[in-house]
Amino acid sequence: MHIGFIGLGKMGYNLVSNLVRHGHTVVGYDINETLVEAIKSEGAQGVNSLQDLYQALPEKRILWLMIPAGPLVDNVIEQLLAIMQPGDVVIDGGNSHYQDSLRRYKYLKEKGIGFLDCGTSGGISGALNGACTMVGGDNEVIEPLHEVFRQLSVEGGYLHTGPAGSGHFTKMVHNGIEYGMMQSIAEGFEVLQKSQFPLDFAAVAHMWSNGSVIRGWLMELTEKAFRKDAKLDEIQGRMFSSGEGKWTLETALDLGVPTPVIALSLIMRYRSLQDDTFTGKVVAALRNEFGGHAVAKK
Amino acid sequence: MHIGFIGLGKMGYNLVSNLVRHGHTVVGYDINETLVEAIKSEGAQGVNSLQDLYQALPEKRILWLMIPAGPLVDNVIEQLLAIMQPGDVVIDGGNSHYQDSLRRYKYLKEKGIGFLDCGTSGGISGALNGACTMVGGDNEVIEPLHEVFRQLSVEGGYLHTGPAGSGHFTKMVHNGIEYGMMQSIAEGFEVLQKSQFPLDFAAVAHMWSNGSVIRGWLMELTEKAFRKDAKLDEIQGRMFSSGEGKWTLETALDLGVPTPVIALSLIMRYRSLQDDTFTGKVVAALRNEFGGHAVAKK
Repeated sequence: MHIGFIGLGKMGYNLVSNLVRHGHTVVGYDINETLVEAIKSEGAQGVNSLQDLYQALPEKRILWLMIPAGPLVDNVIEQLLAIMQPGDVVIDGGNSHYQDSLRRYKYLKEKGIGFLDCGTSGGISGALNGACTMVGGDNEVIEPLHEVFRQLSVEGGYLHTGPAGSGHFTKMVHNGIEYGMMQSIAEGFEVLQKSQFPLDFAAVAHMWSNGSVIRGWLMELTEKAFRKDAKLDEIQGRMFSSGEGKWTLETALDLGVPTPVIALSLIMRYRSLQDDTFTGKVVAALRNEFGGHAVAKK
Repeated sequence: MHIGFIGLGKMGYNLVSNLVRHGHTVVGYDINETLVEAIKSEGAQGVNSLQDLYQALPEKRILWLMIPAGPLVDNVIEQLLAIMQPGDVVIDGGNSHYQDSLRRYKYLKEKGIGFLDCGTSGGISGALNGACTMVGGDNEVIEPLHEVFRQLSVEGGYLHTGPAGSGHFTKMVHNGIEYGMMQSIAEGFEVLQKSQFPLDFAAVAHMWSNGSVIRGWLMELTEKAFRKDAKLDEIQGRMFSSGEGKWTLETALDLGVPTPVIALSLIMRYRSLQDDTFTGKVVAALRNEFGGHAVAKK
């Protein structure tokens, strides 16, 4: 199959390699010309404009976006709309908000253009060697692409989740769960670390990765991290985030679903970005006011 | 090796089968005579008293306890102390509190008896086919038993965690992490369930078990549960617990480690056992008092 790929970052680049390896003819475009040059070495065609990308594809074009979520996706879609024809299909493989995907689906459908929202999990290695893909969209649009999604994924790792929006929705919740699982693992290791026992964290993570109830890829990555840096002395405990945890919580609140663990996982990430807190100052001041308790002076 | 096994419940029974399969001579005892009879069919010797168990073993006896945590462990140790000799070894394979294990270790060491605290994970199937075992205790006591623990465990799933107490401590934290991971997965599925999308939960769990970041045994068990009962209509959302999550939180508080996710996971279990709450009544009453907001009458 001929596929036009827009966005050759860490995920996109590896997905293109994966597609080429499966015999597809891929045309890749990125604003970064170095990446366009590099993708040629993977066996893909590289182009330097959306127009060139579009021209290089046969009719009923497949245009796969792997770009940062947000206005950039709308921007690229608008640029494409100037040249696209009915029957073309846009796949958004990034981490877009499912509400945006629903909106884009309806907008493009009015113009006769298919839209699939594809959540991609498994990290950079997964993109290259077999990912987990959850895709929402109309049956008639996705049907010719089932085989491509299946090839990109590990065995059993592809699901047509349902109607438009459901792919990115499922991916959003996946990431919300991921926040909670990571925070839980991390809290456990901090209890181990603060304990009286001289534990080898990498050895514990390795043992837990084999036969325990909490075994899984995140525990294997935990072992990997401790093998590199036995006590994580080399890094700070700043936990950045890129939106999906916040969206999961916002969605849970809208739906009236109590999700304290996902909520606290997100909140602890925010807390980790603060060196000191105004909340802390207020509580310290109040303890001092009513009980004369000592405050730590600046 | 000759091993005396005390407690032939779901975990103990399967561990005995596993030991016999690895060529060990096992003598099993349980207060439930039916289990003693049953264990004979697994190739173990069955006895009906601790005395008979002890007599059936050669010197430097290995006495493996797989009984409910708490006073029963002290009770059995006291009974054994009436007959044990220096050089014997007691293994506590249950979910005892690590502080109890430290106390028992010191108490038995004074009498020349070895003590190992062995945390066992992997569920009933793991006990039979390969568990995850984390064992604390003195080097000279554990050394002759390394091979046995290794045989009982899956490849890589055995670790001598360190000094006495560290095995049960590590297992306790394992279970605390398990609480958080389970709650996180469960919250995610409730967000899916309350959403506008008609998702197939078993299919989602299967897809997430293959290639996703959150893949692991708990996700595989999630799929299994949804395959049996697609929307879990047949069960109630009551979440019981057996102590380790509470101990992890208590330990975290003692150590001054903020563990909000493990804490909330435990608290949500407690909440799930209440049909209505007094907290809810107080908040409803207060909203009514200050704002005239409606209350739901009993």
